Amino acid sequence: MKNTFGNSFSVTLFGESHGQAIGAVLDGVKPGVELDLEKISALLKLRKGALAFSTKRNEKDEFKIVSGFFEGKTTGTPLCFVIENNDTKSADYSKMKNIARPSHADYTAFLKYHGFQDYRGGGHFSGRITAALTAAGAVAMQILETCGVKIGTHILSCGAIEDRHFENYESDFSALSKLDFPVLDEKAKEQIEARIAGARKNGDSVGGVLETAVTGFPASVGEPWFDTVEGVLAHILFSVPAVKGVSFGCGFDFGKMVGSEANDPFAIENGKVVTPTNNNGGVNGGITNGMPIVINCAVKPTPSIYKTQKTIDFEKNENTDLLIHGRHDPAIIHKASVVATAATAIALLDLLSGRFGTDLEIK
Amino acid sequence: MKNTFGNSFSVTLFGESHGQAIGAVLDGVKPGVELDLEKISALLKLRKGALAFSTKRNEKDEFKIVSGFFEGKTTGTPLCFVIENNDTKSADYSKMKNIARPSHADYTAFLKYHGFQDYRGGGHFSGRITAALTAAGAVAMQILETCGVKIGTHILSCGAIEDRHFENYESDFSALSKLDFPVLDEKAKEQIEARIAGARKNGDSVGGVLETAVTGFPASVGEPWFDTVEGVLAHILFSVPAVKGVSFGCGFDFGKMVGSEANDPFAIENGKVVTPTNNNGGVNGGITNGMPIVINCAVKPTPSIYKTQKTIDFEKNENTDLLIHGRHDPAIIHKASVVATAATAIALLDLLSGRFGTDLEIK
Amino acid sequence: MKNTFGNSFSVTLFGESHGQAIGAVLDGVKPGVELDLEKISALLKLRKGALAFSTKRNEKDEFKIVSGFFEGKTTGTPLCFVIENNDTKSADYSKMKNIARPSHADYTAFLKYHGFQDYRGGGHFSGRITAALTAAGAVAMQILETCGVKIGTHILSCGAIEDRHFENYESDFSALSKLDFPVLDEKAKEQIEARIAGARKNGDSVGGVLETAVTGFPASVGEPWFDTVEGVLAHILFSVPAVKGVSFGCGFDFGKMVGSEANDPFAIENGKVVTPTNNNGGVNGGITNGMPIVINCAVKPTPSIYKTQKTIDFEKNENTDLLIHGRHDPAIIHKASVVATAATAIALLDLLSGRFGTDLEIK
Amino acid sequence: MKNTFGNSFSVTLFGESHGQAIGAVLDGVKPGVELDLEKISALLKLRKGALAFSTKRNEKDEFKIVSGFFEGKTTGTPLCFVIENNDTKSADYSKMKNIARPSHADYTAFLKYHGFQDYRGGGHFSGRITAALTAAGAVAMQILETCGVKIGTHILSCGAIEDRHFENYESDFSALSKLDFPVLDEKAKEQIEARIAGARKNGDSVGGVLETAVTGFPASVGEPWFDTVEGVLAHILFSVPAVKGVSFGCGFDFGKMVGSEANDPFAIENGKVVTPTNNNGGVNGGITNGMPIVINCAVKPTPSIYKTQKTIDFEKNENTDLLIHGRHDPAIIHKASVVATAATAIALLDLLSGRFGTDLEIK
Repeated sequence: MKNTFGNSFSVTLFGESHGQAIGAVLDGVKPGVELDLEKISALLKLRKGALAFSTKRNEKDEFKIVSGFFEGKTTGTPLCFVIENNDTKSADYSKMKNIARPSHADYTAFLKYHGFQDYRGGGHFSGRITAALTAAGAVAMQILETCGVKIGTHILSCGAIEDRHFENYESDFSALSKLDFPVLDEKAKEQIEARIAGARKNGDSVGGVLETAVTGFPASVGEPWFDTVEGVLAHILFSVPAVKGVSFGCGFDFGKMVGSEANDPFAIENGKVVTPTNNNGGVNGGITNGMPIVINCAVKPTPSIYKTQKTIDFEKNENTDLLIHGRHDPAIIHKASVVATAATAIALLDLLSGRFGTDLEIK
Repeated sequence: MKNTFGNSFSVTLFGESHGQAIGAVLDGVKPGVELDLEKISALLKLRKGALAFSTKRNEKDEFKIVSGFFEGKTTGTPLCFVIENNDTKSADYSKMKNIARPSHADYTAFLKYHGFQDYRGGGHFSGRITAALTAAGAVAMQILETCGVKIGTHILSCGAIEDRHFENYESDFSALSKLDFPVLDEKAKEQIEARIAGARKNGDSVGGVLETAVTGFPASVGEPWFDTVEGVLAHILFSVPAVKGVSFGCGFDFGKMVGSEANDPFAIENGKVVTPTNNNGGVNGGITNGMPIVINCAVKPTPSIYKTQKTIDFEKNENTDLLIHGRHDPAIIHKASVVATAATAIALLDLLSGRFGTDLEIK
Repeated sequence: MKNTFGNSFSVTLFGESHGQAIGAVLDGVKPGVELDLEKISALLKLRKGALAFSTKRNEKDEFKIVSGFFEGKTTGTPLCFVIENNDTKSADYSKMKNIARPSHADYTAFLKYHGFQDYRGGGHFSGRITAALTAAGAVAMQILETCGVKIGTHILSCGAIEDRHFENYESDFSALSKLDFPVLDEKAKEQIEARIAGARKNGDSVGGVLETAVTGFPASVGEPWFDTVEGVLAHILFSVPAVKGVSFGCGFDFGKMVGSEANDPFAIENGKVVTPTNNNGGVNGGITNGMPIVINCAVKPTPSIYKTQKTIDFEKNENTDLLIHGRHDPAIIHKASVVATAATAIALLDLLSGRFGTDLEIK
Repeated sequence: MKNTFGNSFSVTLFGESHGQAIGAVLDGVKPGVELDLEKISALLKLRKGALAFSTKRNEKDEFKIVSGFFEGKTTGTPLCFVIENNDTKSADYSKMKNIARPSHADYTAFLKYHGFQDYRGGGHFSGRITAALTAAGAVAMQILETCGVKIGTHILSCGAIEDRHFENYESDFSALSKLDFPVLDEKAKEQIEARIAGARKNGDSVGGVLETAVTGFPASVGEPWFDTVEGVLAHILFSVPAVKGVSFGCGFDFGKMVGSEANDPFAIENGKVVTPTNNNGGVNGGITNGMPIVINCAVKPTPSIYKTQKTIDFEKNENTDLLIHGRHDPAIIHKASVVATAATAIALLDLLSGRFGTDLEIK
């Protein structure tokens, strides 16, 4: 289905970096949900990233909801966001249009679209499109909140620097919603910021690892085969730009563990079934068990760097050197963290709507 | 779509561990492909695992193709595998049916299916179902081979022991197709086997990390958003039992890298566009670039161990102790490696058929 | 999705007329539904048709449920039917395999599958496959019945002969479930039977029109665009062999009406919202309004007739004459009526499960 | 998938009659197709209908393509149309919002969306949305034309008045593209126009039957079960407002025919396989046979009439009388004919892209 994700709740994306507008159509929206537009704006603002590290493109991200929203509430029919593009300097791009920026999509886009793609600023591949994805996710989050579900993401590591894991989800999520640079531990935050500043100075960029957690999500959701909760979440999370790995619970650390340390024993505590450990990240056999869903995403370093790189001109079919000019970020993990939250919300709302119906009557 | 994966080429699974039969229906099969049934049998045999480490259930895995196969060739209409279940000792399971085995799906299945699930031997959640998935993947592999695509998987690490990466794909794949324990480096193989033997002795189990590679897959396949090659592959790979993480290229190591080491410069070598490094694992912007696709899967330790574990009786709603009897494996990574190959083949054939049409006329 | 229909509840078909077996995989099945296997057998028996008019192939239609059914109840995991093929005389078909039977699928199958299709007895296009579809529909009907939904179909017309419309749904459905030739009016039944006997004598065949009605189906189901109740039902009903038209309520008669006779006024009767007329067949704006859903299907005459017909040999690419030998029916409307009921059940259960969730908790 | 239709080529609709904008997102668009925007405008103008019979709402239908279109050509990434709403008088609707207009969707929308739907002017159910559907279809038609496929629709009958059938597709299609009232026979045109004028005078409305034909569509497209060409086309055609029946070839007339008149013999004429008759409307066994695809749609009379009707106030839950004020049409068949053409184009492009791949490399 290409640019559409989801069955019961779905999101369709459109737009290019330097086209007229970008946007998203949300379908299967629960009717009657009051939307807090300020919260959507706030998430979009976080997505643009902390100013010190982020590009100077003055994206206004002023969104319009052109359908599916009436008298302050969702109608249940498709909700369409439109975000106009401004401040686009297309002249920068035309001469570079056949030069493949390493680890970018220029070359693969050329092959797929036979050269007809809008090449300006990455076109439909641009991180700009994540503004639409984030707006969609912000709505999904507000619908999920009516069911008691909350989501937060922070930078778990960058280089060798590690943030602490979530401790108190409630207060950590609340803190993160206000942080323009989502690191829980103050000292780790400073170190990561310093590492990024160093990379910038060096004309280079950094990657990192994100940790997303979801609380309040009902048990019994997901499928044993194919539409596992892990599979559905990973499917969308690889659309967060630069994400190259997705794992749940202990993830790749499981490879070093033995069963007796990896297993999560069940227990009844205060009349509720829990697993005192949560190595499986809230999912057993593809189905949620009622514990927090815990996800890690690996984010590669921003491919745009201020260094001369070897590459090709795919029109002339010859090798060439490339020094990328213009604005670009030494890090996008902090932006990716917002998009990961949004993407997680979209996938989980889809799963929830499929399980309990479009009115979300959860028992 | 639950137990169905794929749009252009799809696989539907059915069956339970101790039911009458398991199987798979394949649709969107290219017509006229001669199938080598011996190769399917060989893959199914590998899936059962090296005898020394694997359970004693004498699964015959004798498959029947009951449709879609005529005069030795695929017809193009649905191809259905049926694998009868034999050697099932149901008596073992009835008394344990309400005891949640830690990190297994007993409890989540109970919640989802309200207690009506076939609980015997894990029912529809059983690793047994992967025989059907493997048979489906074996067909997908043979169709892909008519397009020049090949796939292989080995155990990259188990605990601290590491296998070498793929060096020569052609010969490594060929070697792996004969190995009942898929480790490329002879010494690493011995060490991993020893580690598993140690875990068995200790009543424990081990996890590991798999590396899958795909060669010959055409460039220009995949989508920028949602149906990225990474997203589609990860979607299915989380159905390989015990997989809790999926990554591409450098995966989680990207978190420690800087852009100048992470980027893959393009180059024209012998008239062909390549990236001398392949940190991105063959995918840029969600679309294949013609380089080998390289995937890592994290496999958690087998949850069934010979140790008393704390858990609950979810019918009585009370805490209890559990010692799992019966046959179970100290490791399933070697089995998972076969299923990962099969799952990869299914997802890639779906992407390829969507891109080039059901006759697979690749330019 | 080709041979799979449905999103929330789905059916996947497989098999060919003269292959080893045919069958269906049902997914999204509500768990815990007690299935009356006798009722499934009874519907399959009706599908084979009144003996006097139907082919002599001694189809046993003995079905096995090989998965998803445990201790007399659905488990919620995929339920697979397998029906073995017996009494297949393949020798009849090999010499005719390149002769296009007029209005059959031989030629289009040849083009689509490049000659690799199983041509024996129509292969995957055979009416035989409707046994699997009917079995699937029989399960869907039983699940729908737990929600108070009932379905019945009769032959509304054949040539100029017209059956009466449904009068009392309850008793008419009950009568139809026992009739091997589904005509409500006794006299019309005799006339239609006489017409068919006449066609048979003449080596010819007849068509007809079916009327299907559904009672007890909840209001508020369906979508304004694309997944309208009419669109989803029509989508599947064109898979009932020989159906070439599908309409709702007054259907094609609307073309002759004016608004003041066509409109269905609303009224509150006994505290319930109804439309005293039901010209719209239970659907307004694509969404059910709580009135019975009323569907008409046009069934073309059986293409197999005992007359010499002009046609082509598509292998030799030349014109030729054809006299079809072997068993075939002068009418299939009575069989089609059973399949129409089954198909209706499948589509409606899918819509219902999407609306209210897979546990079918209807408010 | 609700407001999204299609798998390989898809269209997602959004918008309400009196909201800010309506629109459509097209995905799976073949890259590099030069679009003639004038032709899109022309089709939108036809959709608004002949002025004499159509409502006075001054819809400008000025569309913007905000994405997926670059330097005059499709890019291959999602193409989004936005059509702003102007001239909306919302005041008209607020006091009637709980009165169910007979045969409209007011009541079913209320049930489905729990009263949160935008009720103004029919909201998301409004015929206004067909402007977006028509724009999407106009693009699909232009892409299909690059493959030699053409589509046309005319009013086949209205009341007892009958237009002639298509004779010369080429010249008939050309004539229809210029007619604001699509009737091929001049005399029939006058009679139908007179009938509509009579209905208007009487405060009433009329229905009719449409005939759509498609030429140049490749053989071998479609599936034997479920995704039959008829099923897929019918699925979308029931989204053309007021359509209550869809048939192919002889359609409901088949019910009166015998096999020897209904069958289409094959013949080789001028080296090409044809059926001299085309009773099956170009489809055998769900798959195109290369003959023109011929479709009939039954259109019910416009539900809005200038007569007092009995109905209910569903908020107060009481019976009431209703006289609909404001602008409405005595006929919409001529508008529906444009939308039927557009919908047909969308479904056929989806089928074609699934069969031959997204580059539409048709052999």
